[in-house]
Amino acid sequence: MDLLSLVKKSRSYRRFDEEYFIEPELLRGLIQLARYSPTGNNQQPLKYWLSNSPEINAKIFPHLAWAGSLKDWHGPQEGERPTAYVIILGDTEIKSSFGVDYGIAAQSIMLGAAELGLGGCMIASVQRQALREVLGIQEQYEILLVLALGKPAETVVMEPIEVSGGVRYYRDADGVHHVPKHSLEDLIVRDVA
Amino acid sequence: MDLLSLVKKSRSYRRFDEEYFIEPELLRGLIQLARYSPTGNNQQPLKYWLSNSPEINAKIFPHLAWAGSLKDWHGPQEGERPTAYVIILGDTEIKSSFGVDYGIAAQSIMLGAAELGLGGCMIASVQRQALREVLGIQEQYEILLVLALGKPAETVVMEPIEVSGGVRYYRDADGVHHVPKHSLEDLIVRDVA
Repeated sequence: MDLLSLVKKSRSYRRFDEEYFIEPELLRGLIQLARYSPTGNNQQPLKYWLSNSPEINAKIFPHLAWAGSLKDWHGPQEGERPTAYVIILGDTEIKSSFGVDYGIAAQSIMLGAAELGLGGCMIASVQRQALREVLGIQEQYEILLVLALGKPAETVVMEPIEVSGGVRYYRDADGVHHVPKHSLEDLIVRDVA
Repeated sequence: MDLLSLVKKSRSYRRFDEEYFIEPELLRGLIQLARYSPTGNNQQPLKYWLSNSPEINAKIFPHLAWAGSLKDWHGPQEGERPTAYVIILGDTEIKSSFGVDYGIAAQSIMLGAAELGLGGCMIASVQRQALREVLGIQEQYEILLVLALGKPAETVVMEPIEVSGGVRYYRDADGVHHVPKHSLEDLIVRDVA
């Protein structure tokens, strides 16, 4: 698949088929993509904490905030929750701040998921201390971002910002998730000829 | 091309064929990839400042630091410099911090460049105030990252960290750029079964 198609396919999904098990090799393959992605001064300070089991997933789930803009929806119900997680950690023995590195790695992982017909959501709104305690994550590692993954069970469409008049995403009566996007022209402050 | 091959191909390049002109449509296509990439709470605070002309490129180049780990090399010479730049800006009228967003966008752009046989380098070590002044970038925009782009004119290889014994990249006698990478096992602090 060409990259533009892949990037378009890689939407943020928040409802999944919870019957779908994510194989260990598949999850490791996604980390392989992060491993080969750029990292500042080649320091490679990111580490990865993986889960694909119902027991561990159930420990992670309560510590994540879902879809801040959907005021009447508090996250996926049982049966539609993520079936795997990648927790991106920063190793403070290597660096004290992780700048651009974890966004790069996260995007590689999510594009890899999309390529396999999976999807998910990058979640930065995390109860970090509680998650650390319940999973026993060492103090050496800073919790940077949680990637929730699964087999998407919802439809997500992008639309021009003019349709709803703002950037806030919303769900329509059919449960379709709409994501307003600025035009290319709106994003380019200095164009080329 | 499958994503793993594309990610592997997308190395950090620092020497280019300066005869190679990057078409405006191509550059805009890369921003399209960023436009469709995830952004926290769909806020879309990133903006893009583009250059593909020798005159503007020459204004940008002196304000970038190249390859901190190559002590005897101070950046590409005339004839091997980047032929385009994407400056990723954060619009402070939308947000005051840009978290994971610009890493995500940068990776989409660099993968897009690799897909087209181009390449480049994400540069965070930038003389921001001087660059702002020489380009006339408004105070409203924070300079987050500079992506230098061009037709690569060097060979970059990855190798296991054991070869050189550390993460520092280096150039061999033939000018080949070597990048030591940790093993997958080193990066996964909690694996799955």
